Amino acid sequence: MKLYESLAADIAAQINQGVIREGERIPSVRQTSQHHNLSVSTVIRAFLLLESRGLIESRPQSGYFVRRRPAALAQVQTPCGEPLAAAEMARGRTLDTSEFVLTTLRSIHEGSVPLGSPYPDPAMFPWARLNQHANSIARRSSQIAISTDLPPGNPELIRQIARRHLENGLAVDSAEIIVTTGATEALNLCLQAVAPAGSLIAVETPTYYALLQAIERMQMRVIEIATDPVEGIDLEALERAIVEQGVAACMVMPNFQNPQGFQMSDERKRAMVEMLTRHDVPAIENDVYHELYYGDVHPSSLKNYDTRGLVLHCNSFSKTLSPAHRIGWTLPGRYRAQVEKLKFLNTLNTAALPQLAIAEYLRNDGYDYHLRKVRKTYAQQASIMAAAVLRFFPSGTGVSQPAGGYLLWVTLPDGVQALELYARAQERGISIGAGNIFATGDAFQHCIRLNYSYPWTAEVETAVRTLGLLAGELCSNCTPQKRANL
Amino acid sequence: MKLYESLAADIAAQINQGVIREGERIPSVRQTSQHHNLSVSTVIRAFLLLESRGLIESRPQSGYFVRRRPAALAQVQTPCGEPLAAAEMARGRTLDTSEFVLTTLRSIHEGSVPLGSPYPDPAMFPWARLNQHANSIARRSSQIAISTDLPPGNPELIRQIARRHLENGLAVDSAEIIVTTGATEALNLCLQAVAPAGSLIAVETPTYYALLQAIERMQMRVIEIATDPVEGIDLEALERAIVEQGVAACMVMPNFQNPQGFQMSDERKRAMVEMLTRHDVPAIENDVYHELYYGDVHPSSLKNYDTRGLVLHCNSFSKTLSPAHRIGWTLPGRYRAQVEKLKFLNTLNTAALPQLAIAEYLRNDGYDYHLRKVRKTYAQQASIMAAAVLRFFPSGTGVSQPAGGYLLWVTLPDGVQALELYARAQERGISIGAGNIFATGDAFQHCIRLNYSYPWTAEVETAVRTLGLLAGELCSNCTPQKRANL
Repeated sequence: MKLYESLAADIAAQINQGVIREGERIPSVRQTSQHHNLSVSTVIRAFLLLESRGLIESRPQSGYFVRRRPAALAQVQTPCGEPLAAAEMARGRTLDTSEFVLTTLRSIHEGSVPLGSPYPDPAMFPWARLNQHANSIARRSSQIAISTDLPPGNPELIRQIARRHLENGLAVDSAEIIVTTGATEALNLCLQAVAPAGSLIAVETPTYYALLQAIERMQMRVIEIATDPVEGIDLEALERAIVEQGVAACMVMPNFQNPQGFQMSDERKRAMVEMLTRHDVPAIENDVYHELYYGDVHPSSLKNYDTRGLVLHCNSFSKTLSPAHRIGWTLPGRYRAQVEKLKFLNTLNTAALPQLAIAEYLRNDGYDYHLRKVRKTYAQQASIMAAAVLRFFPSGTGVSQPAGGYLLWVTLPDGVQALELYARAQERGISIGAGNIFATGDAFQHCIRLNYSYPWTAEVETAVRTLGLLAGELCSNCTPQKRANL
Repeated sequence: MKLYESLAADIAAQINQGVIREGERIPSVRQTSQHHNLSVSTVIRAFLLLESRGLIESRPQSGYFVRRRPAALAQVQTPCGEPLAAAEMARGRTLDTSEFVLTTLRSIHEGSVPLGSPYPDPAMFPWARLNQHANSIARRSSQIAISTDLPPGNPELIRQIARRHLENGLAVDSAEIIVTTGATEALNLCLQAVAPAGSLIAVETPTYYALLQAIERMQMRVIEIATDPVEGIDLEALERAIVEQGVAACMVMPNFQNPQGFQMSDERKRAMVEMLTRHDVPAIENDVYHELYYGDVHPSSLKNYDTRGLVLHCNSFSKTLSPAHRIGWTLPGRYRAQVEKLKFLNTLNTAALPQLAIAEYLRNDGYDYHLRKVRKTYAQQASIMAAAVLRFFPSGTGVSQPAGGYLLWVTLPDGVQALELYARAQERGISIGAGNIFATGDAFQHCIRLNYSYPWTAEVETAVRTLGLLAGELCSNCTPQKRANL
């Protein structure tokens, strides 16, 4: 261990033992240098190390202070911890979000009511067609090409993706497209491409939990920007964060956001890209629900307004064709070369057969016909689910009005903890998404996310009614009369 | 840009423009502080930034100097740079390894002689059988299960992998296995699981280039341990590096190492694991060629000797069944929970159809029969290729004696630069692997790697003869008589 590392370890120990407390000033560089008989440069190096670890922070003209709170990402900072039972989490122990997300996904098994699932009902995918294509490719190809499936990906699939974007009003250069192992890989690679470790990344709040996890994994810091459940991210707040706090990039979901379901207007999308362009800050756009709109026209993407290659558009077929194929893609703008190299480093290339099966599907089949059917179904089920929640849940419950996708955001009355509801629902074989996983703090611990892609059966209705009853039991502020509504 | 970043950029520009040259001392902290009217702490911060970028180095009692040579990782430190033509690289410009590896892979196209390929001849894979299985799965499954393919992966594939390990003499708990998108993803996840950014990772030298890239990508540091072309890594040197330099983990390939081809003896494997266990240092074992042995018995893995969960075994079907399926796996020992979570964060899950097709193949078919055929072919072609190189190349050329796999390591006579040979061979439609990509420095710039998985045709023989002639032309130290041997 070098001198500065040793000094940093000593100071860290003092902080951890409470010798120097949160918010307190630590001895100055000069004092420390004299006290330990070390050079000024060694001391500064130690302080920078502690700062990079999030233990201390410098304040202009004042010196270094012990950080008051675990950094913004405190709640997702221990992805390696042991899983906690939901009940323990409800009692206020630190939530390990990554673990809890996996727990939530695993709670969706045969026999459970999968309202907490992030996936669409598997019955909504065109398996028969996809499998026919896989089948005919498997029969036809004696050798699946290898070199053609190096990054950026299978050329025919790339051609089909470019064609689809064009049909949806976005003229893209197919040379910009990189195929990835689902949108998850695309988001990870784009994030690493735009900013180094330590960078500050702005996200909507609430936001898709995988973004928080990706930011944590890359050892970046997160700032959560207020996000209106109808209008989307607060552009003024975002611009302030850029100017005042040095946001390096933002990750957003302008269409049918997970979890809130809003769609940003064209004007606000344009304004956002213009503002980001003024500050030369890239936006990673997660647009996986863009094909699942209920309205008459395909929504625009941020990418439509991008003139400078600052929007890294991430997408996939996991919500419309099949999550099991693991086919996503990205249009990474001016970061294309970096993203392509990271793709190569991360997984070398993407499995050939799923790429070819989806390319064949897009080339031959009624993707539009399939999507029209799916959109109509989801739009109907959105209304039914929203009405059922308002009917069965205690008064004071609010619901979102999604214009696309298949996820309903539910705001519970004061005092109802989503984690407690999660645990009780779990015991009854009902899975829900607790609001806690969509933010680093506890701002959404009174919210839940419900999946309405499944047909409205008696079983689903009973599950929603049961959730409403459980929420009522947990609702300390609900008047008896309110509960009687149930 | 902050003050110290701006200052660092100015100094970097002076270095790049040659205003301050390699090996020269840069102005002291005090001088720089006075000259730019900046605080000492700002100047030190700028210097540390330049040091972390490998541009300058501090020497005890002497100050900061412009680094003479690209730093240990300098050659892989700019994965985002522009590609260089091989000829430019041969002239000594910094080699961007990631880019050059991709360039090498792309040089393997129809019409070229793919001696530089890392992949086996596609004709050696059982495509017909694999495709039959994909076909019958595609016909049979109306809905491919989603939840079962969350990490750790498809249960039937996991069962088959565990069974295969058992047949090969390694009793594994199937609960330890995690399926990945090829061994590439497994290596990346294991590396991130065992050590934080900044850690020192030991590798063999020469080593598989993807390990250097993974280490760089995770912002770790690398130390290259002397590795005997027959015995494998120098265990004493490795232990010294652990004790004296604080190595956090090592990444090794004990069977048929890429690129040198050696197989560590059972005794040395055991000794290595015992030594690592004494120091509690994990080993990430890349064992992708383990099934391709030429001898009578399956080689042991480090994992066979692991009693403490310190060996993270990484493997794949890409060398034996198909690289296009992208199916790898890992046995991450005590790091299992972390690796599983990282898998979830990195790509969510692995494509279902390729997992199912390989599981079916393993369950039903003659994997052993297939492998026996492949091993026999590779063993024969290894002898032919080695003999041809010794015959056609200038005297002073050495070759490895691989006991498995399909890669020959060739040491060229003094003065022959692999990159120059690469460039000239490229012009003649011959791809080779230049030794430069297997280390951070230039220790192997006189070596090349040749793939002998392809049948020994007249075309391949002509290509090897041409390479020999080109090597002779580049060989300034070869006597005319030596050249006459050609």
